[in-house]
This record gives sequence, structure tokens and C-alpha cells, in this order.
Amino acid sequence: MNDPKNIFTEMGEVKFDQDPFQKGGSDYFNPAEFRRLVEARRSVRKFTNEIIPDSVIADCFDLALLAPNSSNLQTWEFIRVKTTAIKEQVAYACFSQSAAKTAAELIICVARTDNWRAHSKQMLEEFKKLPIETPKVAKTYYGKLVPIVYSVGWLNILTPFKWIFNTIGGFFTVVPRDPISSFGIKTWATKSCALACENLMLAIRAHGFDTCPMEGFDACKIKKAVGLKGGAEIVMVIAAGKRADGGIYGPRLRFNKSQFLKEV
Amino acid sequence: MNDPKNIFTEMGEVKFDQDPFQKGGSDYFNPAEFRRLVEARRSVRKFTNEIIPDSVIADCFDLALLAPNSSNLQTWEFIRVKTTAIKEQVAYACFSQSAAKTAAELIICVARTDNWRAHSKQMLEEFKKLPIETPKVAKTYYGKLVPIVYSVGWLNILTPFKWIFNTIGGFFTVVPRDPISSFGIKTWATKSCALACENLMLAIRAHGFDTCPMEGFDACKIKKAVGLKGGAEIVMVIAAGKRADGGIYGPRLRFNKSQFLKEV
Repeated sequence: MNDPKNIFTEMGEVKFDQDPFQKGGSDYFNPAEFRRLVEARRSVRKFTNEIIPDSVIADCFDLALLAPNSSNLQTWEFIRVKTTAIKEQVAYACFSQSAAKTAAELIICVARTDNWRAHSKQMLEEFKKLPIETPKVAKTYYGKLVPIVYSVGWLNILTPFKWIFNTIGGFFTVVPRDPISSFGIKTWATKSCALACENLMLAIRAHGFDTCPMEGFDACKIKKAVGLKGGAEIVMVIAAGKRADGGIYGPRLRFNKSQFLKEV
Repeated sequence: MNDPKNIFTEMGEVKFDQDPFQKGGSDYFNPAEFRRLVEARRSVRKFTNEIIPDSVIADCFDLALLAPNSSNLQTWEFIRVKTTAIKEQVAYACFSQSAAKTAAELIICVARTDNWRAHSKQMLEEFKKLPIETPKVAKTYYGKLVPIVYSVGWLNILTPFKWIFNTIGGFFTVVPRDPISSFGIKTWATKSCALACENLMLAIRAHGFDTCPMEGFDACKIKKAVGLKGGAEIVMVIAAGKRADGGIYGPRLRFNKSQFLKEV
């Protein structure tokens, strides 16, 4: 599935900042510009036939992967659907909605529930390449704590034990209550992927294009079409392209903020 | 819990754009600025004692709530912890980590699994206030389809029926595979909340402050401390404040992009 010659292969090496503590970033200030960007982003359901250049797509993915994520385990994956026949299958699996059918790009955003263990080991390897010594606590975290926190066992065999341990322990001290089952792992990985999805959509808007995040789809049909196996959970399919006239179906509508924002 | 005099109460009425189809936004273009913002955002684990002004917090929440979300059902909630005693309890429940203990602001980001039905009805009410006629298909969606798609029944009683229906139906046509259980609803609501969380963190960074999204916490203790009941799932706790020297623990590290980006 992973074409070794695709536009991404040459893009990324592990990167680290020149200044490891990146004091520079703390000076950033431009709230008005971010508001302009956020307000410009709308869910667009009809696109023109203009393509999005590869260089734009590559830059947007780059920014997506800079989203924060749980324990830096990077349990996400993005599949750009280029082949026309597969694109048609994916659009069909998205209930043939206009956003999917007219999109220049269809991006399948995936939460990987099956690679946190490998990524935890990889973190330990990456630490060795860094220009500074990694604190022992970080090595212990990836080496010892991560396997305990995220293991749920074959067929969730550990779930009842973790539940009992947390419930009793919770009377005496602070305990993590989740994830204790494969459902919890799914929610956990979904969360990190969604953070990256928001970066991706904002990045595409910043480049002058638009998106529609789609959640109404037949996950089984999409998985089959693009060759995804167990352990891959489709978080959303993002349609992207150039906004067509009438591509926004209605005014932006949000309920009163007091419904959502509380102070205690 | 909701102090009627808090800073949010007066903020929001349902808003709609002057131009319902907001052609203006399609002109937005500033990828370089968005990259600067994304690169400036780091997870900061130590804050100074500088406070974040109320007006900044209000603006950041405003931008968070403009994130896209599933069917616009807005199944999210954000609790700003102001009371010192509660803040101490929440920091303790976050394993007393430095980010939590030194934060000027602790924001509990919640996925609501219990209000999609009420919000669906509210959408129908809001449509009546709009300056343009809402298409019948949208009214049917919220009035008839949403209750079918998201109902899982008391104690997941509908789960096996939905599974059988989808599995058989899937041989003939496109069917939604999820959510069919309360676990699916939790993942679904978490997703929308996480999209808003990313907007929130970027907005805080755009305003010159920093954040640390925390997932290691004792959800039961936090729920008790802030008075959250069933139906509320804590997605993350965001610590925010002014970046202190040494607040970033290490260089930014991501694996090779080819691990995450595929083309088919």
C-alpha cells in the first residue's frame, strides 16, 4: 500500500529544534490572524475541479503531525486516496455525499490501536539520536510504564483486573481509570488523531482550500477499498478542494456559549 | 455549578454570518503564519505565576467552539477551574504533575454523551430563528435520522439489533457501522471535543500563552471535585499559563513521516 515513491517518503526525518527548549516560540503573538483563519474555515460540501498541489498537501500533513498527541506515541495514520477507482469506492462508502463526490482530495484519518507498543520502543531508540541526554524518568516511562498503562491483554483479559486494581487503589491514591479495555484504547487513539485532524483542516484552509470532515461512512467498505486491517479505526474522512459557489449549505450556527462553558 | 455571573454568560447568542454562504472566507490565505503558530505551540510543563486575562480566555473558548463537530450536535463542554481549593484537587488528580501544579488555568474538556438528543431538538428550534428557510432535508435529518443513528437503548439493548441490521444491510448497500453502543457514543463525542481542544490550544498560543494537554489523570476524582455526573467523559485536562524557563522538557520529536502518511 505504501508506494515507496510517494511524495511523503522523502519528507521526514526525525527532527529536533536547534534550541531544544525553543524559547523562540514563546514570543509568538497573533490572535487576530488565528481568528481570521478559524472563521474562514467552514465545512464545504461542494468543490470545483481545481486540484490541490502536492506541495500544499505535503505541507498540511507536516503541520497535522505537529499536533500534540498522547505520550507522543503518534498513534495516527493518514491515507491520501489518489487512485480514481479507489476514490470512487470511498465516495460511495461516504453515502455518495456531494463533499465526497466533488472533492479534489479524500483523506482517510486513522487511529492506530495496534502500534503504541512498537512506538514506545521507537521512542527509546529516537532518544539515542538526540543531541542531549534524555532524563532517566523519560526512559523509564517508555520502557516500563507505557506497557503497563496501555496493555489490555488478549481479548481484554486484563480488563477486570485493571478495573479492580484501579477501583481499590482509588480509595487510597490517584489512579488512571482508563484505558482498561480495547474500547478505551480506541477512544484514546481517536483523541490524538482528532487533534491532528483539526490541524490538518486549518492548514488546508490557511493554504486557500477547504475541507469537509465526514463521519457518516461505511467503515468496512472503506477499509476494504484502501486495504486497512484490524487495529485501524477510521476517525473521519476529510474531503478537500477549492470551495465551489454554494458549497456552504447554511449560516454558521452554534448554541449559546453558556451551554458549554462553566466555571467552578 | 454554573455561576450566572461568570464571564461566559453574556458572551454568546446564536450567531449567523451576515452572508450565509460566507464567500469572504474562501479568500483567506496565510500558510506561513499558521506554520509559525503550530511550530510555536509546544507542550509546556512549567508556568510562571502570570495570570491569563479573562478576555483572553473568553476569546480562546470562542474559537474552540468554532471547531467543526459531528452533525453540529456540539457534544462538548469546558470547565474552567477557578476556585483555589478545587484547582488543588484537580492538580492532585493529575498526578500532581508540574504542568497542573503551576498552571494559571486548568480547563477540563468534556465529551457529553448525554445531550445529543436535546441538541438535535435544539437544532430544529434554532433553524426557526435563521434569516433563511432551512431545507427540508436538514429538518428531517435532525428530526428523524439523528434519533435512529445515535440511539443505543437502555444498557445498550439496541446494540445487537443494530449490529445485525448493519451487517446484513452491508452486503447490499452502504451502512453506518458506528456508533452502535455506548462505547461508540463515547468515542464519537470525544472526537468532536478533541477538535475543539486543538483550536483551544492554538488560540491560547496565538494569544502569547502556552498549554499542556494532560491525559494522565484520575477521572473519578476530577468528576467528584468539579461536580460532573454520568454522561460526562473527560477527554483531557488542559493546563495553561505563561511559559516558564525550562518549561519545555525536550526537543520536539516526531517519527519519520513515511510511517504515518500513505497514498493509495
